[in-house]
Amino acid sequence: MSQQTKFLLNEDQMPKAWYNLQADYPTPLPAVLHPGTMQPVGPEDLAPLFPMALIMQEVSTEREIEIPEPVRDLYRLWRPAPLYRAHGLEKALGTCAKIYYKYEGVSPAGSHKPNTAVAQAFYNKEAGVKRLTTETGAGQWGTSLAFAGAHFGLEVEVFQVRVSYDQKPYRRAVMETYGARCVASPSMETEYGRSVLAKRPDHPGSLGIAISEAVEQAVKRDDTKYALGSVLNHVLVHQSIIGLECMKQMEMADTWPDVVVGCTGGGSNFAGIAFPFMGHGLRGGQTSRFVAVEPAACPSLTRGKYAYDFGDTAKMTPLTKMHTLGSQFTPPGFHAGGLRYHGMAPMVSHAMQLGLMEAVAYNQVECFAAGVMFARAEGIVPAPEANHAVKGAIEEALRCKREGKAETILFNLSGHGHFDMASYQKYFAGELTDETYAESELAMALAGLPSVPEPA
Amino acid sequence: MSQQTKFLLNEDQMPKAWYNLQADYPTPLPAVLHPGTMQPVGPEDLAPLFPMALIMQEVSTEREIEIPEPVRDLYRLWRPAPLYRAHGLEKALGTCAKIYYKYEGVSPAGSHKPNTAVAQAFYNKEAGVKRLTTETGAGQWGTSLAFAGAHFGLEVEVFQVRVSYDQKPYRRAVMETYGARCVASPSMETEYGRSVLAKRPDHPGSLGIAISEAVEQAVKRDDTKYALGSVLNHVLVHQSIIGLECMKQMEMADTWPDVVVGCTGGGSNFAGIAFPFMGHGLRGGQTSRFVAVEPAACPSLTRGKYAYDFGDTAKMTPLTKMHTLGSQFTPPGFHAGGLRYHGMAPMVSHAMQLGLMEAVAYNQVECFAAGVMFARAEGIVPAPEANHAVKGAIEEALRCKREGKAETILFNLSGHGHFDMASYQKYFAGELTDETYAESELAMALAGLPSVPEPA
Repeated sequence: MSQQTKFLLNEDQMPKAWYNLQADYPTPLPAVLHPGTMQPVGPEDLAPLFPMALIMQEVSTEREIEIPEPVRDLYRLWRPAPLYRAHGLEKALGTCAKIYYKYEGVSPAGSHKPNTAVAQAFYNKEAGVKRLTTETGAGQWGTSLAFAGAHFGLEVEVFQVRVSYDQKPYRRAVMETYGARCVASPSMETEYGRSVLAKRPDHPGSLGIAISEAVEQAVKRDDTKYALGSVLNHVLVHQSIIGLECMKQMEMADTWPDVVVGCTGGGSNFAGIAFPFMGHGLRGGQTSRFVAVEPAACPSLTRGKYAYDFGDTAKMTPLTKMHTLGSQFTPPGFHAGGLRYHGMAPMVSHAMQLGLMEAVAYNQVECFAAGVMFARAEGIVPAPEANHAVKGAIEEALRCKREGKAETILFNLSGHGHFDMASYQKYFAGELTDETYAESELAMALAGLPSVPEPA
Repeated sequence: MSQQTKFLLNEDQMPKAWYNLQADYPTPLPAVLHPGTMQPVGPEDLAPLFPMALIMQEVSTEREIEIPEPVRDLYRLWRPAPLYRAHGLEKALGTCAKIYYKYEGVSPAGSHKPNTAVAQAFYNKEAGVKRLTTETGAGQWGTSLAFAGAHFGLEVEVFQVRVSYDQKPYRRAVMETYGARCVASPSMETEYGRSVLAKRPDHPGSLGIAISEAVEQAVKRDDTKYALGSVLNHVLVHQSIIGLECMKQMEMADTWPDVVVGCTGGGSNFAGIAFPFMGHGLRGGQTSRFVAVEPAACPSLTRGKYAYDFGDTAKMTPLTKMHTLGSQFTPPGFHAGGLRYHGMAPMVSHAMQLGLMEAVAYNQVECFAAGVMFARAEGIVPAPEANHAVKGAIEEALRCKREGKAETILFNLSGHGHFDMASYQKYFAGELTDETYAESELAMALAGLPSVPEPA
C-alpha cells in the first residue's frame, strides 16, 4: 500500500479501563444540586434513577475505572474501532494538514452510543433491575439501549419525541426489532405527559419532555431504572474508550493531534475522543487544542449561559452547572436531531470554563456540504450530527493551508448517515435551510433560569 | 473472554488473488451465445459493454486472478471483514450446531456489493473509460458503484427501477451523495425506455428494463461502459474474497463448515462465500454441503428451468445457460429487492446442475421472523435479503438439534438492514404478507424462453 490509510488495534489492545477527566481537572466539578432543596445531592438521592455502580462512577475522581469483562465482551462485536487517515479529503482540500478520523459508525447501532448503552445495561442487570426507561429524539440512543437491553435481557421502554415518532417510523422499527417498546412522547402513560397533552393535545414533544416522562416511569417502579445517553459524567467516562483507542492509534501513525475536533449536542462523543488527550496534556504530556462544533440553531457552548439548570422540561432532574440555553428553550427542528439539547454535559462545560477547549457553531447547510464532500473523498456517508465535526475539521485544515502549517487534525466521525438519508435528499433538492430561533425566545429561556444560591 | 466470538484477520492476511471456480468444475461452463446469431460470443462481442480486462476474467479458467493493488487499497477501508461465532443465536435455538457468520455489512455501502464495484471501477478507469452505466433495484448495487466511481473519478449513471425510485428516495440520496446521477427507469433517455413508456406511461419498471436502458446507453457512447452487480462470472470471481477470508477464519476457529449457506438473487454473495470452499472440496480437500436460499416469490433455482435465456427484458444481452423464470417474468414486489431477478448466475446454475449444491425457497414473513430473532440474539439487524440466509442457517441448526449433530454451519450475512427498516416496520405492523406470482404467469414466461440450438 502506497500510504497507510487504516490504523487497527488488535482486540487485546482494547483498553481495559475507561478514563475519567475528573482526576485531572485543575479545579473540581461544581456540585450537583437537589431540585427540591437546592443543596448538593448525595448518592442516595440518585438511587431511584440509577444503580449504585453508575452513581459511584458519576461522582468518582479515580483516573481509571475498570471495564467489566461482560462489557468488553460485547464491545468486541465492533471494537476496537478503526482510525483512518483521510488522504482523499486532504487531497480534495489541497491542505498540508494531516487529517485523521476515528470511525464509530461500525457499531450495530451505527454510532458511538452503544459504548455507554452496553455499560449501563450491564450495571443495571448486575443490580437486579428488570426494566430501563429512556428518551430518544431521532432514535440513535434508543436504538443503542434497545440493542444493549436485548443482549443483557432487560426490558427497554423508550419515550420517543412525538414528531420523530411520527416522521421517522424507521428508527422506531430498529428499536422494535431489538425488542424495545416505543411510546410517542408526550404520552398518556405518565402524569407529566397527560398534563402536557391536556394543555395541547397535538404537542409535538421535545427531548426535555421525554426525559421527564422516562424519569417519572423509572421512579414509579422498583424494578425500573432510568438511562441517559449523554450529558452525565458516567456516560462521558464510558465514551472515553474512543479517545483511549485513538491515543494508541496515533502512536501507530507516529504522530499526535495538534487539534481534536468533535460535534457537541449533549457532549458525549466530543468528550469521548477529547478527554483522554486533554488529561494527557494536563498531566504534563503533549498538549492539543480541542474544538467542539455545535449547531448554530442550538448553540449552548457559544450562546448559552454557564449556570445551574435542570436537565428536563418538567424540572424533575437534579440541577447541574452547565452551559445552557435554558430548560424551557425549544430548539428549532434541524436535521442533526442528536444535537438538539438545551444543555451541555457538566464535564464539557467545566473544561470550557477552565479554558481547556474552544467551541464554534455552524449552520446545517454548510455542514451537509462538508458531509457530501467527505463522502465523495473518503467513501463514508456521515450522520448529520457527524457532519458538524467534518465541517470543523475541514475549517481547521483550510486554516493550516492558509498558514502553511502541516498540523495533525483528529476528529470523531461519530456515526454513519444510513438512517438519515431523508435529510440528504432534502439537501440535494435544495429544500434544506438554516433553521434558527428567535433571539427573544432565547432571552426568555435564559431569563427563566433557576435562581440558585452559589454553594460555598 | 469466555468464548471467542469474533475472528479477525490482519490486513496482510487479506487475499492477494481472487478464486475462480471455472478452474475446478468437473465439466466446463456452457458457452455464452450472441443474441443475434445464437452462436458462441467471442471477447470482441462483449467489448462495447466491458473493458477487456473484465472480459478476460469472464472467460478465464485460471484458478487465481491477482487483485490489483489499488483495489486492495480501497478494500482496506473495510476489509478483511469479520467472522463471528453466533453464540447468542445458538443459545436461542438450543442447538448443538456451531453457527458462524461472515459479516459483509461493514462496507461503506452496507453490503457485499462493493467487492465487485471497486474492481469494476478500477478496470474501467484503467481502460480509459469516463462513464459507467448500470441498473439498480432497491439501490444497494447502485450505491456501491457510486461509491467506487467516486473513488476512481468515474461518472456513474444509475437507471433505478421507477417503483424503487419513487418509494425509496433515501437510497437515491445515498447515490447522489456519492455524486452519481439517478434516472427513473423506464426513462425518456433511451430508445427502449421511450418504447416502454409509449405503451404504458405509468410503467413501474423492472430490473430487466433498467438493464436494457443501461446497456443501450453504454453501447451508444465510446467513453461509456456498462457494469452489472451480480450474475456475471467476473462478478462472482470478485466476490470470492468473502469465502477466501472465511477459509482462513475457519482455520483460526479450528473448524471447517459442514454446510455453507447464502441467499441467492443473482447469485453473487452466495458464490462469494461458497465457491472457495466448493473448489477446495473438488480439489480433494474437506467437503461441505452448500445451500442456496431463495425467495419463494422469485424461485429461479427451485422452480426455474435450466435453459438459455436473455439477461434483460429487451433481449439485448447475450444468452447464458442458467436457471431462469424467463426474461419476461415479473417477480412480485416483495421486500428483498436484491433477490428480484428472473435468472441465476450461470456459474451457480452450473454448480447446481452438476449436483454440487442444493437450493431451498422461503417466504418473506418467515424470513423476517428469522431476521428479528437474529437481531435480538446477535445484535445486528440484517438486510431483508440476508434474512433468507439467516432463515436457511436456522433451519440447518434446527435439523442438527433434531439429529443431535454438532455440525459447523457457516452463512453469509451479506448486508445490514439500516436502509430497509420500512419493511421491518411493516412486518411489526402485521402488514407484510407472502407475495406470490400466478402459476399461469410463470408458465407463460417459461414457454416464452428462446429456442436455441444446443451447441455442439
